[in-house]
Amino acid sequence: MSIHPDLNQSPNPEGQGPLLSLRWEENRLFLLDQRLLPEQIVFHELTSPEEVWEAIASMKVRGAPAIGISAAYGVALAAQSYKGDASGWLEHITKAADYLATSRPTAVNLFWALDRMKNRAALLAEEQPELENRYLGLLAEAILIHQEDEEVCRLIGENALPLFESGMGVLTHCNAGGLATAKYGTALAPFYLAKERGIPLKVFADETRPVLQGARLTAFELQQAGIDVTLLTDNMAAVVMTKGWVQAVIVGTDRVAANGDVANKIGTYGVAVLAKSHGIPFYVASPLSTIDLNTPTGQDIPIEERPESEVTEGFGKRTAPAGVKVFNPAFDVTPNEYVTAIITEKGIVRPPYHKNLAALFS
Amino acid sequence: MSIHPDLNQSPNPEGQGPLLSLRWEENRLFLLDQRLLPEQIVFHELTSPEEVWEAIASMKVRGAPAIGISAAYGVALAAQSYKGDASGWLEHITKAADYLATSRPTAVNLFWALDRMKNRAALLAEEQPELENRYLGLLAEAILIHQEDEEVCRLIGENALPLFESGMGVLTHCNAGGLATAKYGTALAPFYLAKERGIPLKVFADETRPVLQGARLTAFELQQAGIDVTLLTDNMAAVVMTKGWVQAVIVGTDRVAANGDVANKIGTYGVAVLAKSHGIPFYVASPLSTIDLNTPTGQDIPIEERPESEVTEGFGKRTAPAGVKVFNPAFDVTPNEYVTAIITEKGIVRPPYHKNLAALFS
Repeated sequence: MSIHPDLNQSPNPEGQGPLLSLRWEENRLFLLDQRLLPEQIVFHELTSPEEVWEAIASMKVRGAPAIGISAAYGVALAAQSYKGDASGWLEHITKAADYLATSRPTAVNLFWALDRMKNRAALLAEEQPELENRYLGLLAEAILIHQEDEEVCRLIGENALPLFESGMGVLTHCNAGGLATAKYGTALAPFYLAKERGIPLKVFADETRPVLQGARLTAFELQQAGIDVTLLTDNMAAVVMTKGWVQAVIVGTDRVAANGDVANKIGTYGVAVLAKSHGIPFYVASPLSTIDLNTPTGQDIPIEERPESEVTEGFGKRTAPAGVKVFNPAFDVTPNEYVTAIITEKGIVRPPYHKNLAALFS
Repeated sequence: MSIHPDLNQSPNPEGQGPLLSLRWEENRLFLLDQRLLPEQIVFHELTSPEEVWEAIASMKVRGAPAIGISAAYGVALAAQSYKGDASGWLEHITKAADYLATSRPTAVNLFWALDRMKNRAALLAEEQPELENRYLGLLAEAILIHQEDEEVCRLIGENALPLFESGMGVLTHCNAGGLATAKYGTALAPFYLAKERGIPLKVFADETRPVLQGARLTAFELQQAGIDVTLLTDNMAAVVMTKGWVQAVIVGTDRVAANGDVANKIGTYGVAVLAKSHGIPFYVASPLSTIDLNTPTGQDIPIEERPESEVTEGFGKRTAPAGVKVFNPAFDVTPNEYVTAIITEKGIVRPPYHKNLAALFS
C-alpha cells in the first residue's frame, strides 16, 4: 500500500464534481483515506485483498456502499495475483471473499457485494477455462457493482432535484455524500447535479456531533466540488430556520421501516421537529436497498450506543470531567409524520408510507 | 499570583454544595481558574488590582456576576496595599477602579460593581480619616456585593424549586451555574437547593457547542456537588425528550426584553422549540438585573457573532476544511410564546410578560 503522489496533488482528476472516495485505475484500487479528512487528502494504492481488508477494518473507507464496492475490487485483486492452476482458482477466490467479509461486522452491503462476487466466480469457473478471462469477469462484476451504486445515487439526485428551486437554502445533517458511496451520495446527490447544471443552491451543513461527519466530510466534499456550503454547529439549525435562510431539509438514512419511520444519525429527529415547527419540508434520500419492509416501525430498529469517549474526548482532548455519565446513541428515529417525502431511485414516495413503500417493491 | 496547594486538594473546603468560583480569605482573593476546567482545579491567590485585572482579561474568571464581584475585591486590594497619605487615597482608589474597568468591555456587572465601589470610596474619604477604616469600608462593600449575588441566586433557586418534583429529569443548556456567580448560579440554583434538602433530581446537560460550557463547566460543577448529571451532545436533547426522561427545561439568560423574549447562549431557542413540541415546560432563571425594560422585544437585542475558529478548531485541532464558510452567533432569541415562566429573586413571572415583568419593578 502506498500513497499515490499525483493523485494527492489533484484528488479528482476531472477537476469538477464530487471528490471520489475510490477509483479503479491502472489495475489497482485507489482509496481516499477518510480518517485524514479534512486536513489531508491522501489516496492509498491497493494491490491485494489483504490491503483492502485492512483499509475497511481501519475505516480508511466508510459508508456502506463504498465498503461493499471496495470489497468487490478486493476479490478481483485476489484473481489478479493468483499464480496457481485452474483447478484451485475457485477455492482461492472464495477464501479471499470470506476473508474480506471479516473486515467489518455491520454493513450489509459488504456481505451482499461479496456474495455477488462469489456467485460470479462460481459461474466463471464453469464457463471460462482461461484464468485471465476469469479475472476480467470478476473485475467486470466489481465495476458493475461500482457503476450501479453511482447510477442509484444519480437517480436519487435526479428525483430530488425538482424539489429545490434555484437560490434555495437547504440544510443537511451528517454525511450522506459522495464519500459514503461510489459518487454523488444520496442526500447530497441533488447538490452535485444542481452544480453540474448551473442551478445555485446554498447548503447549510450541521457539524454533527459527536464524530463531526458534517464538518469533516460534508463541508469538505461540497467545498471541494465548488458548492456553496456554510458550516453550523448542530444547535444553530433552529436560528438559521427562523432567519428564513432554509427552505428545505434533506438527510440520508441507515434504515427506513415499512411505516416510513426513518433511522439516521443522532440529531436527525431534532432537525425534523424544528423543520415542522418552521413549516419547512423534511426530505429523506434513500436507495431501495435501505428500505426494510421486514421492519414494521422505527421502534423495531435497534439503536447502537457508542463509547462515552466520543462525547468527552471527541477531538483528542478531554472536554468533560472524568467519570461523568454520558448518553451517546449513534442514531435516532424520526417518526413518519415528520417526513414530507422519501426520495428513491424509483421516484418520490409520499404518505401513506406503509402503502406507498410496499408498492415500490411490488 | 500563585497556586494555593491546599485548596487544590480540597477545592470546596466545606466538602459539599457548589464549587465556589471565588472566595475572600486571609485578606486575599482566591479565584478558580475556569480555563483549566474540567481537567485541573487550580485556585489563584490574588493580592493586587493588577492581578485581578489580568484574571478577568484572560478569562480565568467568567460570568458577569463573578466578574463584577472579582473587580470589587480588586478595588479593596488597592486600598489594602496603599502606602501614601490620606489626601491621595481617593485618587488612588478611583484610578484602580477605572483601570479594572478596562479588563473586559461587555459585562455590565463589571461597571456596575466598580461604580458602586467608587461611590463608597468617595463617602469613606469624607467620613473616615483612618486609612485602615477606609480599607475595611471598601472590603465590606465588596463582601456585600458578593453576598447579595449569592442571596439573589439562592432566592431564584428557592422560587424555582417548587416547579420540580422529586425524581424529575430536568434539562439545561450552557452554564448558568455557580461558576458564573457568587454561588448556586441562576438556572442551576434549584439543583443545589434540592441536593441540600435531599430531593433527588436528574439533570441532563447539553454540552453546548461551540465552547462547551455545558461539558466543561455545568457537568463539572454538578458532578463536584454530587448532583446526578448526564452529559449530552446538543443534538441528543430531542431523543431524551421522546424517551420521557425530561419533565422540564431550565436555562439562564443574558437579557430578557420587556415582552419576555429571552436572549441566551446559542441553541437555547432550538431547545425551547423541542420542549414545546414535547409538551415540556421551558423555564428561564433571571435576576432582576438581567431584565431590561428598555429593550422592547428580542429583535432589539444585538447578537454577537464570534470567530469561525470556535467552530472549525474548537478543540485545539482543526475539524473542518480550511476556508469553509461558518455561521457562529454566540446567542439566540427565544420568543416569549415558548417561555413557560421566568423565575426571579422576587418570584415566578408568567405571561403576559409585558405586563407582569413591568409590575416587578413598580
